[in-house]
Amino acid sequence: MRALGRDRCLELLASVPIGRVVFSMRALPAIRPVNHLLDGDTVVIRSDLGNALAASATGHGAVVVAYEADMIDLEYRTGWTVVVTGTARLILDQDRQTRYEQLLRPWIDEPMNCCIGIGCDLVTGYELVPAAG
Amino acid sequence: MRALGRDRCLELLASVPIGRVVFSMRALPAIRPVNHLLDGDTVVIRSDLGNALAASATGHGAVVVAYEADMIDLEYRTGWTVVVTGTARLILDQDRQTRYEQLLRPWIDEPMNCCIGIGCDLVTGYELVPAAG
Repeated sequence: MRALGRDRCLELLASVPIGRVVFSMRALPAIRPVNHLLDGDTVVIRSDLGNALAASATGHGAVVVAYEADMIDLEYRTGWTVVVTGTARLILDQDRQTRYEQLLRPWIDEPMNCCIGIGCDLVTGYELVPAAG
Repeated sequence: MRALGRDRCLELLASVPIGRVVFSMRALPAIRPVNHLLDGDTVVIRSDLGNALAASATGHGAVVVAYEADMIDLEYRTGWTVVVTGTARLILDQDRQTRYEQLLRPWIDEPMNCCIGIGCDLVTGYELVPAAG
């Protein structure tokens, strides 16, 4: 397992359409696959998580989540994984919201009532190097 | 998105070699890809998470984690995702440990100092149905 630099991590994250948002719901760890886009230093997702985020939010209206993407070759056991940890915020600005809604179409047929931006506060990533033997 | 029954979820989980364990580390959400096997109602992983689990453990030596696996076709936007939520416990029984160590070889060349069993307390899963339009 080889650590990757921040720029390479974000490049890899941007190269795939889906990942998994990791958060707490009723004090339990929760995870959901979603599609994403990277806008500068922000991972943007659309989700029905607005309520979950609002419920966990601190006074600043922010909650820390992790966002993971990976691409792993099951046959060769190679690939990479990237994790972004940062504050998640509802995107309330109407222009940004409209733009993201156009760029980011949900893959599933469920109401995705909000755009969420996840700041890339902490970015880690690894390249998978097969185990010996 | 179509909900799947518990048996089907566990069948799908067992059909793939890798997933992602979701836990809290220093009060932050954390996630790591690992390989797994399903032994009855327990997801078994090998990991260096022992310390993280021990640090989060309650008096009962248990901590709740989520374990997610998915298989998503990026071209057709179909597939499934399964999430198991349950208590994670270090497997200390020497016979079980030896058996799991033989069956479950880490994919990466890092010390994986413990076997962890995750109880399938709560099992949810969805089949992805493409969004209309």
